[in-house]
Amino acid sequence: MSPRVLLTGFEPFNGADLNPSWAAVRLAAASPLPGVDLHTQLLPCVFGAASEVLWDAVELLDPDAVIAVGQAGGNPGLAVERIAVNLDDATIPDNAGAQPVDQPIVPDGPVGYFATIPVKECVAAVRATGVPAAVSESAGRFVCNHVMYQLLHRAATRRPGRLIGGFVHVPFAPEQVLDTGRPCLPSSTVALGLRTVVTRVARVAG
Amino acid sequence: MSPRVLLTGFEPFNGADLNPSWAAVRLAAASPLPGVDLHTQLLPCVFGAASEVLWDAVELLDPDAVIAVGQAGGNPGLAVERIAVNLDDATIPDNAGAQPVDQPIVPDGPVGYFATIPVKECVAAVRATGVPAAVSESAGRFVCNHVMYQLLHRAATRRPGRLIGGFVHVPFAPEQVLDTGRPCLPSSTVALGLRTVVTRVARVAG
Amino acid sequence: MSPRVLLTGFEPFNGADLNPSWAAVRLAAASPLPGVDLHTQLLPCVFGAASEVLWDAVELLDPDAVIAVGQAGGNPGLAVERIAVNLDDATIPDNAGAQPVDQPIVPDGPVGYFATIPVKECVAAVRATGVPAAVSESAGRFVCNHVMYQLLHRAATRRPGRLIGGFVHVPFAPEQVLDTGRPCLPSSTVALGLRTVVTRVARVAG
Amino acid sequence: MSPRVLLTGFEPFNGADLNPSWAAVRLAAASPLPGVDLHTQLLPCVFGAASEVLWDAVELLDPDAVIAVGQAGGNPGLAVERIAVNLDDATIPDNAGAQPVDQPIVPDGPVGYFATIPVKECVAAVRATGVPAAVSESAGRFVCNHVMYQLLHRAATRRPGRLIGGFVHVPFAPEQVLDTGRPCLPSSTVALGLRTVVTRVARVAG
Repeated sequence: MSPRVLLTGFEPFNGADLNPSWAAVRLAAASPLPGVDLHTQLLPCVFGAASEVLWDAVELLDPDAVIAVGQAGGNPGLAVERIAVNLDDATIPDNAGAQPVDQPIVPDGPVGYFATIPVKECVAAVRATGVPAAVSESAGRFVCNHVMYQLLHRAATRRPGRLIGGFVHVPFAPEQVLDTGRPCLPSSTVALGLRTVVTRVARVAG
Repeated sequence: MSPRVLLTGFEPFNGADLNPSWAAVRLAAASPLPGVDLHTQLLPCVFGAASEVLWDAVELLDPDAVIAVGQAGGNPGLAVERIAVNLDDATIPDNAGAQPVDQPIVPDGPVGYFATIPVKECVAAVRATGVPAAVSESAGRFVCNHVMYQLLHRAATRRPGRLIGGFVHVPFAPEQVLDTGRPCLPSSTVALGLRTVVTRVARVAG
Repeated sequence: MSPRVLLTGFEPFNGADLNPSWAAVRLAAASPLPGVDLHTQLLPCVFGAASEVLWDAVELLDPDAVIAVGQAGGNPGLAVERIAVNLDDATIPDNAGAQPVDQPIVPDGPVGYFATIPVKECVAAVRATGVPAAVSESAGRFVCNHVMYQLLHRAATRRPGRLIGGFVHVPFAPEQVLDTGRPCLPSSTVALGLRTVVTRVARVAG
Repeated sequence: MSPRVLLTGFEPFNGADLNPSWAAVRLAAASPLPGVDLHTQLLPCVFGAASEVLWDAVELLDPDAVIAVGQAGGNPGLAVERIAVNLDDATIPDNAGAQPVDQPIVPDGPVGYFATIPVKECVAAVRATGVPAAVSESAGRFVCNHVMYQLLHRAATRRPGRLIGGFVHVPFAPEQVLDTGRPCLPSSTVALGLRTVVTRVARVAG
């Protein structure tokens, strides 16, 4: 049986009209991926709720791997995150108006979790398809890192040895940066990169 | 009769395998553009020779407008150049090994020429299609500026009132910056932008 | 007799509390410079008026060289401008509320003027003192370029062979970018660079 | 009695002639700091050895706080690190030729340690003196992070409650980036910022 992979994206936040993570996730899953049973889930950009929606999908789908995807405005290519840190520290409110400052995500939880997907192998595979990618050493301190931490914490504590997880940050979409001079990538390019990540992750999952 | 537009791109230089300008020009011209008689020409990345090849094509085709396209590595989007300056000042050799330093392009020629295509209108039209674009105030001092200056100088002196011209710089292609952290745009996105520029220019040409 | 050099800086603009150009100019002139008769002048950040104030000082002082200095926010080091262009195109209002768009500075004037100070020699001299510097190919389209164009135009038409001129852009001061992640240089470092420029210019002036 | 603070800097690495961290540390300690018993130590840029030299100084001096300082080329201001991660992953060799890839610093050690100096308070205090500063979420994966991790690990395990620690990254010095277009700060500015950090840390140490 093909390994089952759950790919998540976020709704828009901070007043934006779109979130390139969800646009790319939908496109990545718009056609079948050989050898992978691929599912997607949209997450709210809300501390706490985002992790709950993700975990509900995990319990429903019982995937072998979860790859959460979010926007990192200003990045030039895909960034595969290496570590999630036990800290919420928001500089803007989330979509429910919450703005936690210097709060642990899981009180008494470990300081951090390393991604359990093969980070460098994913980066190499994406580059091999002609799409810029890099390892990232910080997923920020907003909802993205929060979701990554909760995913890895719950995988470690509730599904040890049965679920690997990671996070990929994607650049702005072109229409978000028409006159700003900031880097971007079209959704089609990002989707290609995500399909490569999913394929590479599926090889070690399940 | 439709206005005739000549769109040029450059061959690779400085040891690169590709030049995103020619990749995008070819793609931009791969399907017909309603209301425009579009032609393309590849230019050598050589001081002098590039302008000669371009002008030979002008004499052969008798276009109403010429839009030369070149690579500006590090740029995040399309850049429509406003001015060409009467100065060669190369920091690397061209493809024939020449590296002019602080030389006038046309001795006793004017210090500069403004582009005669509608620069800001082109930028606005490109942005309206969701592709990042900006006005640029310098085409550099390498072969791109050289070609733009010679094009505008010859148009002004040999075809006054009969030929408008301009220059568009395009970003790196993704495969050029896989691990460099520099911005890029896929050829398909750039080609869409170039088609918009051609259409906008054609409206005022001929 | 020592060559006389006029060094100008700008008042703050766009709501800022300070303009690093004037802070650095004042500091550069705070102690004598051997072999140079150095004078300074503050300019209003106003199209037209800035050039008038500068030219009044020229007529009063009869300098051998004028070096105008302005702020280029985001630059990492000193930038010695190579060319002034006959175009005002403001994206923000000047301090008198004027915001000219696509207007010639001198109707029927040349498209551009090259700086008549030794640009590359100045850059090399500044670097030799350990201060970052570069040649710049565009002084923008705001009051800085306006002043540089008028200076060179008037020098060429009213004082041919008797006055050389140029423009140096300087980075933000540290206190302007405390939390922005943009580059800066302290006034003391910029002033050292300006003194080097003045000294180098004085060698060929007069 | 005044709190005792140990401030460390690194020797040059990767073929450079200088390391701005040590230049600034020396300058920061060149004059007394009221209310602080300040000591400095130069560290080799060598995995393992750097931590040993630092810890030897800790055992000799018995400080209340240690602030290690290193170079982060490309940064525009001071960066106070929030977290050290249990991972060596070098992209260049250290000064002894070692280049560990994906190795834990302390096998079975925690994934990370948060700095125990008051990170945000230090950033705010530095900015208040007119020097750019920011919180950083990654100290990299080279010798800087290694030293920070070992410092915090040993403080936690060998001197619990008796020693606080942290890490500050500093920009290139101007002479390192004369023609590169990268940001820098003079040692005098960085030293001022470090003195502010030391003073702020001393307030909560001892």
